[in-house]
Amino acid sequence: MRAVDIIARKRDGLTLSAEEIDFFVQGFSQGTVPDYQAAAWLMAVVLRGMDRQETIDLTMAIVRSGEQLDLHEVAPCIADKHSTGGVGDKTTLVVAPLVAAAGIHVGKISGRGLGFTGGTLDKLESIPGFRADLTVDEFRAQLESAGIVVSGQSADLAPADGKFYALRDVTATVSSRPLIASSIMSKKIAAGANCIVLDVKVGHGAFMETTENALELARLMVDIGRGVGRRVRAVISDMSQPLGNAVGNAVELREALDTLHGGGPADFRQHCLTIASQMLVQTNLYEDEDETVQHLTFLLDSQRALQKLRQWIEAQGGDISYVDDPDLLPTARFIRELPASRSGYVADLNAREVGLTSMLLGGGRTKKGDPVEHAVGIVLQAKIGDRVEQGQPLLTIHADDEAKLSGARQRLLSAYEWSDEPVSPPPLIHQVVS
Amino acid sequence: MRAVDIIARKRDGLTLSAEEIDFFVQGFSQGTVPDYQAAAWLMAVVLRGMDRQETIDLTMAIVRSGEQLDLHEVAPCIADKHSTGGVGDKTTLVVAPLVAAAGIHVGKISGRGLGFTGGTLDKLESIPGFRADLTVDEFRAQLESAGIVVSGQSADLAPADGKFYALRDVTATVSSRPLIASSIMSKKIAAGANCIVLDVKVGHGAFMETTENALELARLMVDIGRGVGRRVRAVISDMSQPLGNAVGNAVELREALDTLHGGGPADFRQHCLTIASQMLVQTNLYEDEDETVQHLTFLLDSQRALQKLRQWIEAQGGDISYVDDPDLLPTARFIRELPASRSGYVADLNAREVGLTSMLLGGGRTKKGDPVEHAVGIVLQAKIGDRVEQGQPLLTIHADDEAKLSGARQRLLSAYEWSDEPVSPPPLIHQVVS
Repeated sequence: MRAVDIIARKRDGLTLSAEEIDFFVQGFSQGTVPDYQAAAWLMAVVLRGMDRQETIDLTMAIVRSGEQLDLHEVAPCIADKHSTGGVGDKTTLVVAPLVAAAGIHVGKISGRGLGFTGGTLDKLESIPGFRADLTVDEFRAQLESAGIVVSGQSADLAPADGKFYALRDVTATVSSRPLIASSIMSKKIAAGANCIVLDVKVGHGAFMETTENALELARLMVDIGRGVGRRVRAVISDMSQPLGNAVGNAVELREALDTLHGGGPADFRQHCLTIASQMLVQTNLYEDEDETVQHLTFLLDSQRALQKLRQWIEAQGGDISYVDDPDLLPTARFIRELPASRSGYVADLNAREVGLTSMLLGGGRTKKGDPVEHAVGIVLQAKIGDRVEQGQPLLTIHADDEAKLSGARQRLLSAYEWSDEPVSPPPLIHQVVS
Repeated sequence: MRAVDIIARKRDGLTLSAEEIDFFVQGFSQGTVPDYQAAAWLMAVVLRGMDRQETIDLTMAIVRSGEQLDLHEVAPCIADKHSTGGVGDKTTLVVAPLVAAAGIHVGKISGRGLGFTGGTLDKLESIPGFRADLTVDEFRAQLESAGIVVSGQSADLAPADGKFYALRDVTATVSSRPLIASSIMSKKIAAGANCIVLDVKVGHGAFMETTENALELARLMVDIGRGVGRRVRAVISDMSQPLGNAVGNAVELREALDTLHGGGPADFRQHCLTIASQMLVQTNLYEDEDETVQHLTFLLDSQRALQKLRQWIEAQGGDISYVDDPDLLPTARFIRELPASRSGYVADLNAREVGLTSMLLGGGRTKKGDPVEHAVGIVLQAKIGDRVEQGQPLLTIHADDEAKLSGARQRLLSAYEWSDEPVSPPPLIHQVVS
């Protein structure tokens, strides 16, 4: 078998066999298939596509490139959720301890922010001491002892994915449904989760801008997971405007803590209850969705989920006093309100622009490996459907630099669109693929 | 400007600007755009195509990657011909001295054989001492002193082309009309020729298997050349069966010498007269095609072209006694006739199979840089349309190895197809694009 022939077959729109895909992926992972051959192949995949079976074969070839965690001995159900990335999406910070508080083990590999999207690990690292780089053995041990663990991608799990992603990023081959689906699912499968809920975001602030694209990606990922014996369902959720109010790192952690204290923005709280209930129903231990939501509401309001978060943060080395007293979290030098330039109803609030502004304030990164500032960010006070009078605050900017503060003002003002007539807010959940 | 954005634009089927193409090509040539980005871009070009202007811009960007020979001071017309590659295509060996004998300077960059196609330089190197690796200065000096020079690609001319080609070869991105056209034309333009005849081969033994594809490639190359002020025309010539009778290195050189002595196979002689007359008419010094062919016939039969070949070979260090006594040329250990397995008319003779057999005998190479054996090859005695009786010789195999001789027999027998009814030979020239 020769890599060049496999590239040629995909270039010509032919279907690759499992053996061909495995040869290519292991060769790339081990360095016998060079970067330039992988780059040509990736572009052929982007432009020619892959069918369902090829995508499953690609996913499993990526899984086989590294270690596969077998967590059957830890618990019958290992739950995981994955978001395709959005703005203000701090869901894991609430849902992971909430589901763990319901007695289900949560073992999650999480990511960092890139571009306009934030990352769970960056938010968690607002807490001094928090370790996101657990080894595979530490991951398993904490899952066993605490019932909850969230760590960064280990080099031992699906290493071909990291290598592919680095190459895709610089060769304009990111935007491909089979490549995105196999990248996400290979990490989930390698990390041993067997009850997986996928939170597929749609809208300005997501990689998928149409519900149709999001649905196709969701269905493909559900197919892949089920094709290899995992329980998977997907939720198509709205990301036309940011989720909740806070966008940044420490500000989002703070909002998650508020929610775990029984407060927090209504939309974010509702979203967390939906995702968590889907995770519980997915295990087959819970059946009735309404009763499950009631139970989860109790776990949230009784602060049992907060207790689980404390246990989790402590297990991963985080300074627990920051959880108990969020005022200790890093704060920005300038905290300034942005007044509305006109009166009216908020007709649109471009999540991508808000995410990019947070990134430009220093809260995100333009390329992998860059550091982020934890204190900066944005806290919204007006979202789609809200009535605002001229001069009333739209949001608060948390900045460490006056020039960046001023740039953020302009950018954020233009992220809003206005209507004189009342506007309905978008639905939180567009569809469930189960 | 960023390479990844240029890749993304081509991935999305957009038209690239001259600046974008130049940025990418110079970056690749100088090493600031890495191989993997170039590979992804090449695959996007293969699958998305390039329009006429993009192809011209790509050609000129490749030209600008190195030195450009300005030969205006040597002569007003510098003629060149280029074949897209075929089997038994020894045309340059006759046409270059023939056109030079007509008083037109011939300055040609030539290539080596690869796969089923032969290369002029490999054939010339059957003569001891012949130097194919002239420097740019030596090229110019010989063009001035002898009026004829044929050398291998210098590293100084269109270096990006060599780098692109090496990458295309291993990333399944060879088969693209704009990439093929720009590769050929950049070398012609950089080498300073201003009167160019392109011999675009079509059929089993060519890269273009249909006349339509060959015509489109020919028109594109003519457009590129004219777009930058060169006189260019193209001939679409048949390569369904080998050209002439000899396929190999020394055997082809010998056939060319026979032709320069006034003999040689009728089809090959006719082809050479056509290409040479197109080159002369192209200069605008000659007008009437029939009279030009008559004049060229005179130059061939009076051995003036042969004298020019002697002068040329001597100028490039070749041992002239091999020209005067072709029996000195290397001969193979085994020279065996292959008898026809049946009686009938030859209906088809697959040029690609004959070329591959010559390669497997040792006369060609599977990858660049491999050595070739000069003595081995095939000399056809029956071509399409010929009536052959069972047991009569179809061809002669020149081999250095008994196992290869036996493999060649089987392969060559199956390259022939038969008919009980008379068959017309294919036309030599399908079309002229002028």
